[in-house]
Amino acid sequence: MSELVPTLDEDLEEALAGPAAVDGTGVPGIRRARAWLTRAAEPGSVGLWRWVDDVGPVAAVRALRAGTAPEHARALVGVRAEEDASLADLRRAERCGARLVVPEDDEWPALPLHSLTVAVVAHAGEPEQADRTTALVPPVALWVRGTARLDEVADRSVAVVGARASTAYGEHVAGELGHQLGERGWTVVSGGAYGIDAAAHRGALAAGAPTVAVLACGVDRPYPVAHSAVFARIADTGGLLVSEWPPGAAPHRHRFLVRNRLIAALTRGTVVVEAAARSGAQATARRARGLGKEVLVVPGPVTSAMSVGCHELLRDEETGARLVTGAAQVVEAVGGLGTDLAEPPERPAGPRDGLSDLARRVLDACPVRVGVSAERLAAVAACDPLEAMRVLPALELADLVQWTGTGWRLTPPPKRREGHGAGG
Amino acid sequence: MSELVPTLDEDLEEALAGPAAVDGTGVPGIRRARAWLTRAAEPGSVGLWRWVDDVGPVAAVRALRAGTAPEHARALVGVRAEEDASLADLRRAERCGARLVVPEDDEWPALPLHSLTVAVVAHAGEPEQADRTTALVPPVALWVRGTARLDEVADRSVAVVGARASTAYGEHVAGELGHQLGERGWTVVSGGAYGIDAAAHRGALAAGAPTVAVLACGVDRPYPVAHSAVFARIADTGGLLVSEWPPGAAPHRHRFLVRNRLIAALTRGTVVVEAAARSGAQATARRARGLGKEVLVVPGPVTSAMSVGCHELLRDEETGARLVTGAAQVVEAVGGLGTDLAEPPERPAGPRDGLSDLARRVLDACPVRVGVSAERLAAVAACDPLEAMRVLPALELADLVQWTGTGWRLTPPPKRREGHGAGG
Repeated sequence: MSELVPTLDEDLEEALAGPAAVDGTGVPGIRRARAWLTRAAEPGSVGLWRWVDDVGPVAAVRALRAGTAPEHARALVGVRAEEDASLADLRRAERCGARLVVPEDDEWPALPLHSLTVAVVAHAGEPEQADRTTALVPPVALWVRGTARLDEVADRSVAVVGARASTAYGEHVAGELGHQLGERGWTVVSGGAYGIDAAAHRGALAAGAPTVAVLACGVDRPYPVAHSAVFARIADTGGLLVSEWPPGAAPHRHRFLVRNRLIAALTRGTVVVEAAARSGAQATARRARGLGKEVLVVPGPVTSAMSVGCHELLRDEETGARLVTGAAQVVEAVGGLGTDLAEPPERPAGPRDGLSDLARRVLDACPVRVGVSAERLAAVAACDPLEAMRVLPALELADLVQWTGTGWRLTPPPKRREGHGAGG
Repeated sequence: MSELVPTLDEDLEEALAGPAAVDGTGVPGIRRARAWLTRAAEPGSVGLWRWVDDVGPVAAVRALRAGTAPEHARALVGVRAEEDASLADLRRAERCGARLVVPEDDEWPALPLHSLTVAVVAHAGEPEQADRTTALVPPVALWVRGTARLDEVADRSVAVVGARASTAYGEHVAGELGHQLGERGWTVVSGGAYGIDAAAHRGALAAGAPTVAVLACGVDRPYPVAHSAVFARIADTGGLLVSEWPPGAAPHRHRFLVRNRLIAALTRGTVVVEAAARSGAQATARRARGLGKEVLVVPGPVTSAMSVGCHELLRDEETGARLVTGAAQVVEAVGGLGTDLAEPPERPAGPRDGLSDLARRVLDACPVRVGVSAERLAAVAACDPLEAMRVLPALELADLVQWTGTGWRLTPPPKRREGHGAGG
């Protein structure tokens, strides 16, 4: 079988021989080069991304294979430079209904991911951070499982993230959020993990809305295995499984941190539902903030260890975190200006609401049973009798007080009046 | 009996005939004039307070009695100008262990109440608001029940307020706050109402700390009656019952709103524990803010109707409300700069915490059972084999990996090792 297909190097040759203007789509060389890069180098390196962006993926891979790449790129790829599983990876992806989406494709989510490019440019002069897990750098390509277009589902999307060791409260809130965001036409993006992530995905699925799980492993073996049914439903119902790692990649711990930047970057804002003390929530929020995205936080009982991290975020002014209590407020924060406005919480309007200070005091002075004179009311209400007499007719019209024939009293409550009144 | 005591007018005569410099203490005229004013005029009128402040309480009362006071003052007092219960009120107070504290007294809480004077001066040119219940104006005098000095208990004090229809969660939090503030030497000031108020008072009492109930009725008939035992304990254990209204005054509804400004003014900050949607919480917070006091808010479950008002406050940037989760954070906000700092929530330190990005990746690459070579680890960790070999000794020293004789693997967890290891 292998002799029928072009080798990586043949593919790269052909790509380089083609037109200089990169239109990309359908050119196997570029796609294969980027597939190769996703396996050869752990994502998160600003230096490597810059160099690939500079020379192009095909030339970059050729240089790495030939040992002529810059020192920093060679150090990163190491012994993997000699291996090639790019075609196998592309085929393995195809078998599970996945594909590789590259920046040269129409469906590349260029607009949301632009935030990461901006971050790289903003820190252009600085030396690369030792800890690459927190670097803000675009992916070289994305493995995507599902039929929806990546750019379309990412357009109006919100990240809902939080603790794996969530409480029933947190899962309820995340599920409601997922459901209501879905109903409002927003895509929920999360990590597919236990706890808050899964609750948010399930809520969106229950609303029949697309939801995106960004994974720290291959899209053909989504982790955790216990969520296989959820992952399958996500991919089968208009949602997507997305990963920077090639098929078969294992969910190494540091990959989750690298992955988290992508969840923040793909969406308009990140909602943190539950987080323990000094958990990754702050880092996530700071990164989302650094990408110019909204950081939204759901509070919880101060007695809950799983809300401590949320409250820390809300107390830390540097994170710019905003408190939200539901989907309407989330949409208001991430949606268009002037549209998507949340209604303020309602309080039923009472007959006392429109009263003046004086009218309220006179009303308060009225006894429940035996009526009293306006003069007596004025004395209790600390006003002039004439003032009291001026507001009493309005109170009577509003059915708040009544004239008993000998004095003023409060109108008895409705139930009692029904008992007294006529049946018809 | 009445012929043995000087009449109000005699007392006022004498006070006016005395030295022009008002030292006040022990001068019955001034105290009696202010006692009379607390019954004759509902508090909350900026105009009346300004005029009394201007001409002095004795001359003000004489003018009101003689009908020569300014129109606005006479309108406010109305028919009450002809009545005099000042001596009866002072005696009734004495019988229940109470007294009238006037601005001329040493124990007048001049420092905290200065915020109200500032507010009056700040709005000097403006016409008086129609709704006097929200006006920021100092009291003309305070009826105080209990043995403590008012200025002393008010010095390091915090208001804890919230819903009457509180939940078990809110009461628990308010009780804990009251207790811990008390333990830290802070006085809890509240309104003595059902729900959050009572829980806060009870928490402080349980800590053996003084607590202050600011009432909207006479200190001899504290409301609600169901809290009689709590009120008695407050007055008997170093705390105080405080009111602007004379003994016997009824708790009219508008008085609670007028009273609320005093709770905010007497304290360094106000903590809102639970509040329903669009309840008085916002108004309370805005007034505390207007007085230059801290507005602190305890969040709760977003599923609880009794936390909706709290979350509204925290979302409304104009209130300047800050989220707090416990007494330490409250004290940090209202306490001295640099002292009273709250500890950040702790997370237990793990052995992975100090690791470099590279070391973490190599560690993640280690298998659980069968040891593998450094080259294999380097391939998985996407680094140079030499780099992997450089960090492995440190990981071994930290007891995170072990050399099996043929390769590297993760150190098995402690329990399993005990099972394998020797019994002694």
